[in-house]
This record gives sequence, structure tokens and C-alpha cells, in this order.
Amino acid sequence: MPALPVIRRLPKYYRYLREMHAAGVERVSSSELARMMGTTASQVRQDFNCFGGYGQQGIGYDVANLLQELELLLFQEEKLDAILIGAGSLGCTIAKWINNEVQGYRLTAVFDADPALFGQKVCDTKVLPIGLLGAFCAQNRPQVAVLCVPREAARTLSTQLIESGITGFLNFSHFDLSVGHPDVVVENIHLGDSMMSLGYRVRKKLESEKL
Amino acid sequence: MPALPVIRRLPKYYRYLREMHAAGVERVSSSELARMMGTTASQVRQDFNCFGGYGQQGIGYDVANLLQELELLLFQEEKLDAILIGAGSLGCTIAKWINNEVQGYRLTAVFDADPALFGQKVCDTKVLPIGLLGAFCAQNRPQVAVLCVPREAARTLSTQLIESGITGFLNFSHFDLSVGHPDVVVENIHLGDSMMSLGYRVRKKLESEKL
Repeated sequence: MPALPVIRRLPKYYRYLREMHAAGVERVSSSELARMMGTTASQVRQDFNCFGGYGQQGIGYDVANLLQELELLLFQEEKLDAILIGAGSLGCTIAKWINNEVQGYRLTAVFDADPALFGQKVCDTKVLPIGLLGAFCAQNRPQVAVLCVPREAARTLSTQLIESGITGFLNFSHFDLSVGHPDVVVENIHLGDSMMSLGYRVRKKLESEKL
Repeated sequence: MPALPVIRRLPKYYRYLREMHAAGVERVSSSELARMMGTTASQVRQDFNCFGGYGQQGIGYDVANLLQELELLLFQEEKLDAILIGAGSLGCTIAKWINNEVQGYRLTAVFDADPALFGQKVCDTKVLPIGLLGAFCAQNRPQVAVLCVPREAARTLSTQLIESGITGFLNFSHFDLSVGHPDVVVENIHLGDSMMSLGYRVRKKLESEKL
């Protein structure tokens, strides 16, 4: 597998190429792509070399072709089955967004621990009691879990989820899954951490401007 | 200012120390802290050295003291004023979360372009027409904007926001703010990008397990 920073840049390439393709752009050089994305031409070339090249010296990249290659890399043909754990406000927002705006996933179940939510619908999917998680996974083998639960619940559930065959996590909880499970694929979205780092940097910037 | 990766680790240190403090732990060594966080003792020591040390050789760190220093670094006394642009499902979730779960910020206004939302309340804050953004910022000087709008709206609004004195962005849009405005403080949360990278990595892992 290519290095993680390279993989993390793929969606960004995909977004820019999709936009260019929609605007009718047919060819793009590595330096044009780099300028738009705020990176360097050499990094663009290196990144695509990890996946087999695609470009031609002096001619650049064929936008439609490169876009198609990226779609194949990122989405493939078969969707991944995702389950949502935690049907609170954030969970419901994420469920809607997986169903309507994200390619490559199918939301197959929603779980929560709160009996008041059982049977309620999140994006046409009934909220199931968390107690049914094991049975559901054994029967349906989802590959991805979206964790929108507090830290403690994430800690308790993660081992069960991994043993049930979950391979990838979109982790909104503050439980650092990778520490105990280094082999599992995790994308962490620590909203609180981002907000704290942002605050620190904003305050430093405002202080430096005052000087 | 310390390097960005160091700043990005501060919230994580803060979370772990807060938990230890709550559990009554009084002292922690750099290697214990490193083990919990999945990093190395030398990185822990280097990180804290960027902010003035705090530890003592052979004795480790005083948890309460270190926690207090981190709180000072991350939150200071005065809250930052934040405005939310985009009162859709994600925006409302984030607004609730800023009001109830995040330290260091005060949500002072919510804006949207949809007249159907004007006057509706998001966390006790009335949704204002986006046309009032300039006047609001001139009068109230918020420091932070949370962008929960589509790419095009983010592109259009970012320059206006920066000229209105916004210093930091929590950016959920797919507009790569930093490319055109390298000096602005931005924390990007590209949910779509995270989901795409996750999909790529999960598929690669499943393929490698099949071999």
C-alpha cells in the first residue's frame, strides 16, 4: 500500500480533477495541478507514480482518464457496507451524508444504546438496540463502522466490532482506537481536538499581530 | 509558534491528562504517557520542551500541574467568538456541540443564505441572512468562523470573512482555503476525504487478506 500521506491526498486530487472535468478541461500538467492544490509538481508526479503513473512527459495528464483511474482506486465497483453506532445529532447528520453525498458506501444499520431511539428511523434505517450488534455483524458482515458515541462506549465496543469483522472505522469518538488496535484501518475525526488546536493557533496569531 | 504537528498533539495530551487527573493519578512519566498515546517517550519530552518543559528528570510530570499548563495554553481565560456559516444539518450539530461540549469558544451568530431559515433558532441563536455578515463582523469582531457551506459558497465568502477580521476557520467545506490564503489559520475537516481514504485503505486491506 502507498504511504498514508499519499493515500490521504487522493481524495483531494479526485475533487480537483472532477471539477476540471466538469469545466471541460481536457489536459492538466503536474505543475498546474500542484498550483491549484497548493503543493509541488514533483509531489504530484511522485504521488501518481505510486499508482502507476498515468501522465506523459511534456503532455501532462488526460483529465478524464486520470479521473476515471482515481474513481476506480477510490470507489471500485462494489460499495462497502457501513454501520453507524450512535444515533445522536452527529450520528444522524453523518448517516444522511453517507446516504446522500458519499460515494462507495451503503449504510446498512444504525445502532444505539438508548431505548427511546429503538425503532426510530435514521435515513430510512431503523435504530436497533446495541445488543443486536454482534448478531447483525455475524449475519451481514459489514466492513466499516462509523463511531458517533462517547469515548467509553467506543472503548467497550471497538474490540467486539473488530472481532465481528469490522475492518475500517470512521471514528468521531475521543477513544484513540489505533493505540490498542494498530492493525485496524481508522480515520479519526476528532472535532474537539481540531477546535482546540485552532484556538491555540488563532490566539498565537492574534498575539503576534498585537506586538 | 511550535510546529503544527506539535500543536496538533496538544489536545490529545490534554484529553489523556484530564482523564488521569480525574482518576486520581498524580504523576506520570514521559514513557507512560507515550505508551497510552501510542507515541514515544522522546517525542513526549520534545513536545513539552517546546512549551517550556514542565517535567523533572527521574520524577516525571505532575499531572495536575501539567493539565493546568495545557488548559492555559489551549483555552486561556477569554473565550474566542465564533460564528457559524450554514445552518443545515451539519451546521446545527456543530453549533450544539460548540455550545455544549467545546471549551474556549462562544457562538455569537449563525448565518445562512436560505430565507426559509431566517429567524429560526439554532442553539438560542437566531439564523441571520448572509447579507448581514459584513455588518455583524464590523460591529462584533468575531475571531473564528465555522464553515458548513458548499464549496462555492465557501470560496465566495472566504475573502469577505478574512477582510472582516476572521483569523481562524473550522472548515467543513471542500474549498481548500489555505491555497489562496496561506496566512489564515485553518483546521480542515473534510469528511468526504476521510471517507474516501478510509474506503481505499479498507479495500486494500481486504484484498491483502484474501491473498
